[in-house]
Amino acid sequence: METIYFDHAATTPVREEVIEKMNPYFRKYFGNPSSVYDISNKTKEAIEDSRERIANILNCSPEEIFFTSGGTESDNWAIIGTAFANKNKGNQIITSSVEHHAVLHTFEYLSKHGFNVTYIPVDEMGFVKLDELKNAITNETTLVSIMYANNEIGTIQPIEEISKICREKKVIFHTDAVQAIGQIELSLKESDIDLLSISAHKFNGPKGIGALYIKRGTRIDNFFHGGAQEKNRRAGTENVPEIVGMAEAMVLSYENIKEKNEKIEVLQKRLIEGIKEKIPYVKLNGDSVKRLPNNVNYSFRFIEGESLLLMLNLKGIAASSGSACTSGSLDPSHVLLSIGLTHEIAHGSLRITLGYENKMEEVEYLLQVLPGIVKRLREMSPLYEDFLKKRRDINV
Amino acid sequence: METIYFDHAATTPVREEVIEKMNPYFRKYFGNPSSVYDISNKTKEAIEDSRERIANILNCSPEEIFFTSGGTESDNWAIIGTAFANKNKGNQIITSSVEHHAVLHTFEYLSKHGFNVTYIPVDEMGFVKLDELKNAITNETTLVSIMYANNEIGTIQPIEEISKICREKKVIFHTDAVQAIGQIELSLKESDIDLLSISAHKFNGPKGIGALYIKRGTRIDNFFHGGAQEKNRRAGTENVPEIVGMAEAMVLSYENIKEKNEKIEVLQKRLIEGIKEKIPYVKLNGDSVKRLPNNVNYSFRFIEGESLLLMLNLKGIAASSGSACTSGSLDPSHVLLSIGLTHEIAHGSLRITLGYENKMEEVEYLLQVLPGIVKRLREMSPLYEDFLKKRRDINV
Repeated sequence: METIYFDHAATTPVREEVIEKMNPYFRKYFGNPSSVYDISNKTKEAIEDSRERIANILNCSPEEIFFTSGGTESDNWAIIGTAFANKNKGNQIITSSVEHHAVLHTFEYLSKHGFNVTYIPVDEMGFVKLDELKNAITNETTLVSIMYANNEIGTIQPIEEISKICREKKVIFHTDAVQAIGQIELSLKESDIDLLSISAHKFNGPKGIGALYIKRGTRIDNFFHGGAQEKNRRAGTENVPEIVGMAEAMVLSYENIKEKNEKIEVLQKRLIEGIKEKIPYVKLNGDSVKRLPNNVNYSFRFIEGESLLLMLNLKGIAASSGSACTSGSLDPSHVLLSIGLTHEIAHGSLRITLGYENKMEEVEYLLQVLPGIVKRLREMSPLYEDFLKKRRDINV
Repeated sequence: METIYFDHAATTPVREEVIEKMNPYFRKYFGNPSSVYDISNKTKEAIEDSRERIANILNCSPEEIFFTSGGTESDNWAIIGTAFANKNKGNQIITSSVEHHAVLHTFEYLSKHGFNVTYIPVDEMGFVKLDELKNAITNETTLVSIMYANNEIGTIQPIEEISKICREKKVIFHTDAVQAIGQIELSLKESDIDLLSISAHKFNGPKGIGALYIKRGTRIDNFFHGGAQEKNRRAGTENVPEIVGMAEAMVLSYENIKEKNEKIEVLQKRLIEGIKEKIPYVKLNGDSVKRLPNNVNYSFRFIEGESLLLMLNLKGIAASSGSACTSGSLDPSHVLLSIGLTHEIAHGSLRITLGYENKMEEVEYLLQVLPGIVKRLREMSPLYEDFLKKRRDINV
């Protein structure tokens, strides 16, 4: 049996077309782009062509795109680079309580280095509380970093409003758009976003490559020090094949994105409704409208998410309980706690994230096996037993 | 005409065997290694298997190998990570004047952040002056970073002695071994090296992947903050295909390394002697014995290295004047100035770096065209005209 892959927020398979595009750059066109001879022209051109393709999709200037080794580097660079570069202005930096760890742990690192970090809470749908954000910004604030869309519950933040607030208050605004790029259309032209992080392996590109959009004029230090690559902003020999692959994957992601998303939303809707219909004591996490088209996140009371995943795995279904980057940890998701779930309910969560290759029959298969799995796990659960007992007591 | 590639210190083509090894990990085995389901086991295993293959070659423990995005990240991590982690002990950090920019510019960055940087000079062969190093180390010193072998002139440093000095003085020792790994055998077992940087694209592996060896017990901060990858030391989804490719390339590099190097040294010797024999007013840069087997670096008086490279390019030969990472800059090489060359002579330098695919006929072709090129460039050179005039005046 082929595995049914429902964890596209964790990573995605590289598309065949992308592999084909990358292949010549491993061996045939391998020259160091910084060299002066002819065989390097091909790689130099490939990088600049890729930069242009990406800039065209994001509606920004190619000079504003800098290639990195992925989303984590982009987030680290954006946050550490601006915090230190603007330290003379102030040392307060702001983020939200539902960010990816690549943002949260970078803020923690800076807090150990003397920066004053403020975490803005979110409401029960996962939206950042705009009033609290406005009130938190002071004359000492230099940076606000709020993710575009949440990796666990799919909630899409009101980025335009947030960026406007930051522009008005003259604060640099970074957004971790790792889960959004490839999934939703956005234009950086005339936007108030100063920095935006991208990761290729989230949209069927290769792992190990990403980009940071830096709006012209943004004050930011370098993060990688060394050679003069990327206009002296990001040192290190360019990962040419993967840069080419990232651009190709991005172009393919945005081809017919409307139809693609319509198709995915049909699957999403069926999952959201099907689970609610077939299984009692569940809760959909995240907003039902302002949500990534490929994300479904449910909490199942009385059970452990890890057991659920293992049982699904036995049925040939790959899904997750939250961020892949923190698996192995027994702590409940900080995102689910932030939207107000109790520890117990947060523990019993399942994230299903769809890709363009998923089919309705796969969704139906999940809806067929999931109720039985949840039922069995509940039957083994002391929490469920307690619950039933209490219910009986009340009904007596 | 096929290009003759003589710039293996800049980068190398990925070997076919390496591409084949990587290919399944782009699409077939693509699971996020941090996930819990079956399809991630393959990628988890591939990473740990690669780590073990690399550790076997370096004679260290797999737990001491951490994957990075390349040599620049490894150098930045090693230096920034130890400087900050040991700041309570002192703020003096030491390096040499002939390091790669990934080291030098990182030290410059730290010097702006309050660290006291000492640059140890080298002798005319490019060897770090050990007495000066010993004298420079104080109670405030926390880190010494000296490269294993120089990327421009190929000089191999007395790393064992340097690391012993550091061990005695209880100072952490980092070595940028980007040019050495894949070319010379080394064992980290019972060595006093604490940190060692590796880059795959220098030994026919892919660009965008490298590693940092961290000896067990070395006090170092993280550089990438985020997910729990690499035992919580280096965040970011692992670049699985390139990790697999790096290990394969390294294993292949060390297969029959003695015979391979013997073959390359025959070419090296022929180049060193041939150039000296056929062209007047030249100077071999770097030591003739303690030298990377693939490196030849000559200064040609009265001419510009850039013009030489362009003329060689027209003849189908790809070579360089020094580090690819700084090309575009008109400054003469800091390495050549450090070994005592004047600006004029440093400007007229040519670096030829050989690979296992080079053949004697390619070397002979270079030796056939180079004298004519140098002669033509000198005929156009006002410096050469001056020199001839002065010589005539003396001989009159």
